[in-house]
Amino acid sequence: MLLSVKQMKRIFIEELRSHIGKEVVIAGWVDIRRDQGKMVFFDLRDMTGKIQCVVLPTNTQVIEIAKAMRLEWVLKINGKVNERPEKNVNKDVLNGDVELEVLNIEVLSKAETLPFDMSLDGYNLDLVTELDNRALVLRHPKIQAVFKVQETIIDSFRTFLKQNKFFEFQAPSITPAVAEGGSEVFQVDYFGRKAFLTQSPQLYKQIVMSAFERVFSVNKIFRAEPSTTTRHLTEVVSLDAEMGFIESWEDIRDMAEATVRFILEQVKVRNSEHLKLLKTDLPVMIEKTPTLSLTEAQQKIFETFNRDVRGEKDMNPQDEREICEIIKKETGSDFVFIYGYPTRKKPFYVFPNPENPEFNEGIDLLCRGLEWMSGGRRINKYDQLLEHVKIWNMDPNKIKMFLEAFKYGVPPEGGFALGAERITMQLLGLKNVREASMFPRDMERIDERFSELA
Amino acid sequence: MLLSVKQMKRIFIEELRSHIGKEVVIAGWVDIRRDQGKMVFFDLRDMTGKIQCVVLPTNTQVIEIAKAMRLEWVLKINGKVNERPEKNVNKDVLNGDVELEVLNIEVLSKAETLPFDMSLDGYNLDLVTELDNRALVLRHPKIQAVFKVQETIIDSFRTFLKQNKFFEFQAPSITPAVAEGGSEVFQVDYFGRKAFLTQSPQLYKQIVMSAFERVFSVNKIFRAEPSTTTRHLTEVVSLDAEMGFIESWEDIRDMAEATVRFILEQVKVRNSEHLKLLKTDLPVMIEKTPTLSLTEAQQKIFETFNRDVRGEKDMNPQDEREICEIIKKETGSDFVFIYGYPTRKKPFYVFPNPENPEFNEGIDLLCRGLEWMSGGRRINKYDQLLEHVKIWNMDPNKIKMFLEAFKYGVPPEGGFALGAERITMQLLGLKNVREASMFPRDMERIDERFSELA
Repeated sequence: MLLSVKQMKRIFIEELRSHIGKEVVIAGWVDIRRDQGKMVFFDLRDMTGKIQCVVLPTNTQVIEIAKAMRLEWVLKINGKVNERPEKNVNKDVLNGDVELEVLNIEVLSKAETLPFDMSLDGYNLDLVTELDNRALVLRHPKIQAVFKVQETIIDSFRTFLKQNKFFEFQAPSITPAVAEGGSEVFQVDYFGRKAFLTQSPQLYKQIVMSAFERVFSVNKIFRAEPSTTTRHLTEVVSLDAEMGFIESWEDIRDMAEATVRFILEQVKVRNSEHLKLLKTDLPVMIEKTPTLSLTEAQQKIFETFNRDVRGEKDMNPQDEREICEIIKKETGSDFVFIYGYPTRKKPFYVFPNPENPEFNEGIDLLCRGLEWMSGGRRINKYDQLLEHVKIWNMDPNKIKMFLEAFKYGVPPEGGFALGAERITMQLLGLKNVREASMFPRDMERIDERFSELA
Repeated sequence: MLLSVKQMKRIFIEELRSHIGKEVVIAGWVDIRRDQGKMVFFDLRDMTGKIQCVVLPTNTQVIEIAKAMRLEWVLKINGKVNERPEKNVNKDVLNGDVELEVLNIEVLSKAETLPFDMSLDGYNLDLVTELDNRALVLRHPKIQAVFKVQETIIDSFRTFLKQNKFFEFQAPSITPAVAEGGSEVFQVDYFGRKAFLTQSPQLYKQIVMSAFERVFSVNKIFRAEPSTTTRHLTEVVSLDAEMGFIESWEDIRDMAEATVRFILEQVKVRNSEHLKLLKTDLPVMIEKTPTLSLTEAQQKIFETFNRDVRGEKDMNPQDEREICEIIKKETGSDFVFIYGYPTRKKPFYVFPNPENPEFNEGIDLLCRGLEWMSGGRRINKYDQLLEHVKIWNMDPNKIKMFLEAFKYGVPPEGGFALGAERITMQLLGLKNVREASMFPRDMERIDERFSELA
């Protein structure tokens, strides 16, 4: 078994079809294997795809290796790319019309027997077991599909904003103090002092916007949420944008809508195979996403479902489901913007509607009954900010750097934020946000479950 | 002063030259202002550039505003784009041949008097004062230039690796335990348990590589370094890559070299204005960066400088400076790779040279006397890893998920990492890494200096 394959440049499995009739070297993992009488068939998998390989019994030295090898062994193979006999052609898959006649195999690495069925259709773990076996499970195509979609989401957030002249900055993780209450904050021992993990890059992105005009960041945020719901993680990736020189909050809404539209389009194009594998339909975004004020939404719910939430300070989950249902029926849109929340119920920096200061110019984007995004216009004038700091009963010393930015001239501005894991979950219709985080952290787990630790 | 400009779409200042003779609306900050007799001249700045604006004395209402306004006021201006008189043309700058005749001004936001000179050439703060005033200082073009270059560095790291089929994943910040010693680790109070901030995504990137083959991540790492040198921060952005199916450590070296080459090329093209502003020359990367083993480097130092460091376990700063000097003289290259460090001096996962296991297949890239990057081949076989875990006296339970990945077949592999702040500093020839971090955290500061806090 100490064979070594020819010294040729390895090619990727997706490239095989342009080498029909030629000898090539490929490398990858044994994905499926079956002995058929004296022949051995197996699939080899690399990051670009799979190919069926055949070892003929006449190749005596190699057939011996082929019979010994097991799933997930890592091989380098020297072989000849052949067209498949007509009756074996499968037009629906990559390399469905070719196969590799194996000439030689070099075993790069062996594998232990798999602890559970990892085949495409046989794989069936509950979430806890899945996370207990995260390292291995990441090899499954359905799990990979989720993170390939997530990569596209984050990537297209960046691409779209860069196309619109937004500057990418790195928001900090360690913060000095918690300006807005915040019991759900992680404390760090910082050389004997107290420091905290950031809950949001909000104030930093406003600072950077005050200098760069249009900015975004893709950075971790942390929340010490003492709950184990399907929607909460302690560490998530926040996609944050902020822009100056807006005419009104509607500019923020429009930029947010265009960003989400671009993400959906990109996922559709770049992840069509993954969406098929996950059996998911993307939500429908019509040409102009409907926008309602909170008050209008409450009125619609009252009229349609005869349930009176008029005057409530916020939407509860049932409200969110019902307004999405109403809008879907009325317009075909899976998305709806809600704006205008009670000013005092939201953070100090949200801009109050000048004509009706009881309500602010905050915006949420809902989709299929869930919040996808939130944002809005912010206060840009120093005096008004100071006034709010007082009303909100905050310590201005704890946001000194933030306030400093606004002392020296800041244009009318606003921004929005999406959580990468939550949007991945909702876009793919996953049941639990943990499925949308490669290494999810929560109250009960950091990699290993706490209950399993000594 | 309650003027309001025409309802026209704002254009960016960089677009003005294509509107000569026309009326436009622009918006931005007052950058420079000078009264000349009865006229007022000032520059308006937006994120795309600057334009000289002229207010004529005949425009009585507007001249009054223009005389009252101060630096950093935020304006929306309605004006006419005129060609400058021949004698006033400055061909070297954007809009050097045009100016805006101001028809109307709307003041969007006022500014307090600047606490120090923010002009291009007048700005001259020491680093401590600069960081004490970070929010305001971010508006200075030289400071912006540093972070624009940093954006390109991070962006081109991503672009190059994506072009080479690397998958981007999100490495976690919160980790369960510290596998490799690590006194310099920040502790987090995690629901009453101990958790830690990651010092490196090393083990995670190897796990993800075992499933996705080629992976990279751009994520924060943290180090509780109790020192205040010019090179250390507690929170930095780590650019990490890892790839499977290598033939030897030289594949890692070549991928790292190509990545750095691409970054340099991109900075040269995209940041030429910023480099000019910062008066920096990029380091020279020749066609093939020289590679020396540690032993060869020590021999060269001995022969050239008659200083005997042969047999030392690592390079010290003087060695790094001297070998760079020697290679520069011999080849013209500012870069040199050093490989082959004593196995026991490096982490357990580094691959020992099979022909000489006392030395490993770790690699560093030096440039102008400083380390830019480190990486190397890793152990990919489970048994060999377990053996090293034992020799290094580590607790295998603390790296359970990592070891699990290697149980099931992992190809020969390796990777490399660069620190975004450090490479920004070195590429631009900055004196202190704090200049290359927008919100630097160290022993003495998180935004505000600790010594200044109550």
